[in-house]
Amino acid sequence: MSLSNTVNAKAIELGKYVVRMTTEAGSGHPSTGLSLAHIVITLMHKQMRWDPADPWNAGADRLVLSEGHAVPIVYAAYADLGGVVGKSRAKCHTLTAHELDRLRTIDSELDGHPNPAEGFPFFDAATGSLGQGLSIGAGLGAAAKLAGSDKRIFVIIGDGESREGQIWEAADFIVDHKLTNVTAIFNCNGQGQADYVSPQQSAATLTKKLLAFGWDVKEIDGHDVDAIDAVLSAAVGAKPLAVIARTVKGWGVSALQTEGNHGKPLTADQIPAAEADLDAMYAKLNVPHTVDKTLTPPRPKAIAARVAKPITLPPFADAMREYGQGSALEKRKFSTRRAYGVALAALGKADERIVALDGDVSNSTFANIFAKAFPKRFFECKIAEQNLISAAAGMAAAGYIPFASSFAKFLARGYDQIEMASITRANIKLCGSHSGVSLAADGPSQMSLPDMAFFRSFTETDDGSDRPACVVFHPADAIAAYHCTALAANLQGMCYVRTHRPDVGFIYDANTAFEVGGSHQLVMGSALTIVSSGYMVTVCREAVEQLAAAGVKCTLIDAYSFPLNAEPILVAAKQTHGKILVVEDNYVGGFAGAVAEAAAKSGAATVESIVCKRIPKSAKTPEEMLTYLGLSVADIVKRVKALAG
Amino acid sequence: MSLSNTVNAKAIELGKYVVRMTTEAGSGHPSTGLSLAHIVITLMHKQMRWDPADPWNAGADRLVLSEGHAVPIVYAAYADLGGVVGKSRAKCHTLTAHELDRLRTIDSELDGHPNPAEGFPFFDAATGSLGQGLSIGAGLGAAAKLAGSDKRIFVIIGDGESREGQIWEAADFIVDHKLTNVTAIFNCNGQGQADYVSPQQSAATLTKKLLAFGWDVKEIDGHDVDAIDAVLSAAVGAKPLAVIARTVKGWGVSALQTEGNHGKPLTADQIPAAEADLDAMYAKLNVPHTVDKTLTPPRPKAIAARVAKPITLPPFADAMREYGQGSALEKRKFSTRRAYGVALAALGKADERIVALDGDVSNSTFANIFAKAFPKRFFECKIAEQNLISAAAGMAAAGYIPFASSFAKFLARGYDQIEMASITRANIKLCGSHSGVSLAADGPSQMSLPDMAFFRSFTETDDGSDRPACVVFHPADAIAAYHCTALAANLQGMCYVRTHRPDVGFIYDANTAFEVGGSHQLVMGSALTIVSSGYMVTVCREAVEQLAAAGVKCTLIDAYSFPLNAEPILVAAKQTHGKILVVEDNYVGGFAGAVAEAAAKSGAATVESIVCKRIPKSAKTPEEMLTYLGLSVADIVKRVKALAG
Repeated sequence: MSLSNTVNAKAIELGKYVVRMTTEAGSGHPSTGLSLAHIVITLMHKQMRWDPADPWNAGADRLVLSEGHAVPIVYAAYADLGGVVGKSRAKCHTLTAHELDRLRTIDSELDGHPNPAEGFPFFDAATGSLGQGLSIGAGLGAAAKLAGSDKRIFVIIGDGESREGQIWEAADFIVDHKLTNVTAIFNCNGQGQADYVSPQQSAATLTKKLLAFGWDVKEIDGHDVDAIDAVLSAAVGAKPLAVIARTVKGWGVSALQTEGNHGKPLTADQIPAAEADLDAMYAKLNVPHTVDKTLTPPRPKAIAARVAKPITLPPFADAMREYGQGSALEKRKFSTRRAYGVALAALGKADERIVALDGDVSNSTFANIFAKAFPKRFFECKIAEQNLISAAAGMAAAGYIPFASSFAKFLARGYDQIEMASITRANIKLCGSHSGVSLAADGPSQMSLPDMAFFRSFTETDDGSDRPACVVFHPADAIAAYHCTALAANLQGMCYVRTHRPDVGFIYDANTAFEVGGSHQLVMGSALTIVSSGYMVTVCREAVEQLAAAGVKCTLIDAYSFPLNAEPILVAAKQTHGKILVVEDNYVGGFAGAVAEAAAKSGAATVESIVCKRIPKSAKTPEEMLTYLGLSVADIVKRVKALAG
Repeated sequence: MSLSNTVNAKAIELGKYVVRMTTEAGSGHPSTGLSLAHIVITLMHKQMRWDPADPWNAGADRLVLSEGHAVPIVYAAYADLGGVVGKSRAKCHTLTAHELDRLRTIDSELDGHPNPAEGFPFFDAATGSLGQGLSIGAGLGAAAKLAGSDKRIFVIIGDGESREGQIWEAADFIVDHKLTNVTAIFNCNGQGQADYVSPQQSAATLTKKLLAFGWDVKEIDGHDVDAIDAVLSAAVGAKPLAVIARTVKGWGVSALQTEGNHGKPLTADQIPAAEADLDAMYAKLNVPHTVDKTLTPPRPKAIAARVAKPITLPPFADAMREYGQGSALEKRKFSTRRAYGVALAALGKADERIVALDGDVSNSTFANIFAKAFPKRFFECKIAEQNLISAAAGMAAAGYIPFASSFAKFLARGYDQIEMASITRANIKLCGSHSGVSLAADGPSQMSLPDMAFFRSFTETDDGSDRPACVVFHPADAIAAYHCTALAANLQGMCYVRTHRPDVGFIYDANTAFEVGGSHQLVMGSALTIVSSGYMVTVCREAVEQLAAAGVKCTLIDAYSFPLNAEPILVAAKQTHGKILVVEDNYVGGFAGAVAEAAAKSGAATVESIVCKRIPKSAKTPEEMLTYLGLSVADIVKRVKALAG
């Protein structure tokens, strides 16, 4: 049977599954899935080199379904090929067609949108929040190029979805880094959810845009099997390839072809007519009514996944000297952001899985220390933070350990991408520099203020493997930053390292131990327990000294990590009349929240806080900024005296 | 003196101020400011219709400086024209050249990046987090078109900045809505912070891209005054105009023209050479060495700002019937998201300042009820949430009250834009639908989980006018949603209304009163105080009934707003042995955090919580989802029995 006949027959038969499984689920997007039937089948049954019995094989071609709601057609094709599902090679089974009806049920691997973490290893990333897939593909492509693999990455993008700016950030990144191993397929079915797709996202306009972005573009009929196969079989050229596929939303099923059917399954009594519609396609397309099980994808070379192994760093002083920062060792003063750069370079030397990405601020985050040492493993993302985060997630899926850095404020541009990475359980490391308010002069547009509340919300969330969905480190000095960055590299899962701009004096000995959720008691007193982290530890140390001189002896604890183990803090507070004051340079919801929640469980301690409670503006110095916000040494001293008095 | 000579002479003189003021500040971006000298002066002194003595005039043309770090040149031009600064007409003064040296100081209106809220009313929005200005301009343009004003909006965008995807979201939006009153000026100086700008953002590539996006494009020398003036003087055509201006970073000052000088002021001892460089430009450009004070901008028509007045809604039942939802009144069951749509339409009828924006999900958020009633005041933003938020902020600056809606999850795409709107003190209203986990089947890519932690962090932050930087409403039933949406419309400042997908039974009487920070005690008991909000109130009600049947009588409080007034909760807890349990369908940092922080201050109550503590997946029903996450009725009953026992 010809390829065209085989794929058409499969499109009809798998289309029936798409219709039935969404009706059974009572939700889902059959019309989008049907529009992709021929493209997905040609890819999965013919073009992609992969092994349905071993989707974990790191050498296989990859498919990123950016418009995640179309996933039922992929599930149907996967079952047709006997793909295995499960969370590991040890615990997996072959997906049967029967199981397709378990779509979207609580114990099924077939989540409503692609989600490798629930046991569908064919995918590399959770998608469904639109516009992120091309960046994931870019990360996979960059990883393959770096590893010297010839694998190809296919990304399917909706037309309406291509309104998301991130698609264009990814398009630029792919051209900048010459990732011709990435092929973008735009599914132009012309219909969105609330209305038709804008002319700005028509096949013709998308073609113009992609050409302007420097891509090679081919327009095809997305239901013409030979056209699909031909365009995907052509040799990779000098430019990345975009395929503009004109398709029919609800292909083959008349009831699903009118606008207003986005995300709506048929009712059970509509199924017979839908199946009759699809059956009628045999005659319309002049396709023999037979099932061909012989079409299977070419197998890839078997390539083992990169092995996770502990990464050991040299002593702090050695790394500082190696990366040209030796003079700080005598001054005993250095910024946490620069120490991050030193640690990153030292990690890069210790393990070739370490890669770094930055958004045109590597001379501020100090990722440039790594970039200078390991230029091939540094990926300049320019001013496009959404792509920065998702590309990092793509590289993590390929077995690298990506560190993505920018100003902490600008990482907020990728908060949705960060959340999607948490659903993927992506092993990415984020570094936000210039955090809090200590950068002062540039003003609030460059300050991170709700970041601690945002990231903390993930840290008490289990990722399903007894790990936090995110671990946060907020180091107070360069030595803490050095060790916390190494911790982040060695943890499995998402981490956020929050660094600050100013140089601060060393607080710790070079070989101090740091741990997830940890804290260090820096001063012991009896009047009150002060808890702080990051830059504010230095401010609190000065306050504690002034208070001690005035006869008010405080305990000072540096709580530098979420999920916080509050127990040592509550124990310390027993020696200070159960009184705790938490000091932070961000809006509410950070460490003060974590300590208060722990204390409020038992009621054994009282917790007050000094946090940023007004919108900042520019100030010439950190001290002026802190005074403006009520976070200065004098404010802390005054508050402690009132509380301890 | 010719326009060219006048502007060139001013560029030289104002360039000196740019150099000096950043050196005096010890930080800032003189090189970017210099690259824009001729463009800014031609705009502010000649092209724009505005009154330096009354920058508040709503009829004036607007300038959005998207690359906010270039702001010193605007400050210098503003001082040259005698523009007034200050937070209101009653409290303002003329900016003198002498004051330019107060750039970035704590008591200056001249913040490091544009910030109208600190007293620079010439601007409509805080910028500095890059890529947002064209969307702000789009919002201003849409507002002007809606109001029938002929004003023009000019947006200056950096070349490196145009890597941000949001620029392209805005470019699409402007074409979709035919906003030819918006002119985008791209400052192509070729240099970024860490390196040169990518060829993807070169003048030539930007031209191709903008043409593909449907814009009219003119390339000019950005230091050729006559060319600038000619391109801005041309009649507005059928397409929006983009000006691609090739410029020199650090124009006129050799020490600022090499890569690596981004964001670096000169040292004091470099100033004489810089001034000599600039003085040499007189001869180079053959410009007379005179100061022409006669060039002033044309004055706009004086148009009064829209007057804020209270908006009153009809009774709930009347509005429900008017917008075709009368049948729910008998069923006494309705979703909060649909009630939001009804309230929005009723608000639109009551006040023409109400406008709505949505991102292709108006049939899910139910903004489509408004869209149907007031199509001219509804702005379809398609799948591009960053532009959705910033465009709303632009409309707010023009005196409208914009309601921007999407799935709560997808608003996360605009968290940085939301933060920038908070710095602007923009009067925008956000509605996130399908919040929490009760949408179940679609899975975590569509669920909002860290949103309560994120938004709460703003609610205890003062905006400088004794108002919270954000007010959050999380209504439990349709009646609460109706009234909370009306409250949001009447508040000045940012609000977030969190709605959910499922229909729930009415909890409140139609005329119940709601307030900022409020809560309602629904059930009174003695065993334990349960605090919840939104969808979980319905779940808790069932648990409380089951517990009462088992002889465990609980107090149930619906805490529906941040900044939470926790006092009534702590008072209620006194009747329940000081025991509180907070129940939420989001990650940590929401109401449980707020209650715990309040309780931990006094230690008068203990606070436990049931919140979402694992990453969700798909489930067929909300009940299955809640059981999977440990948030079900049975989980609550079990926990209460353990705590109260």
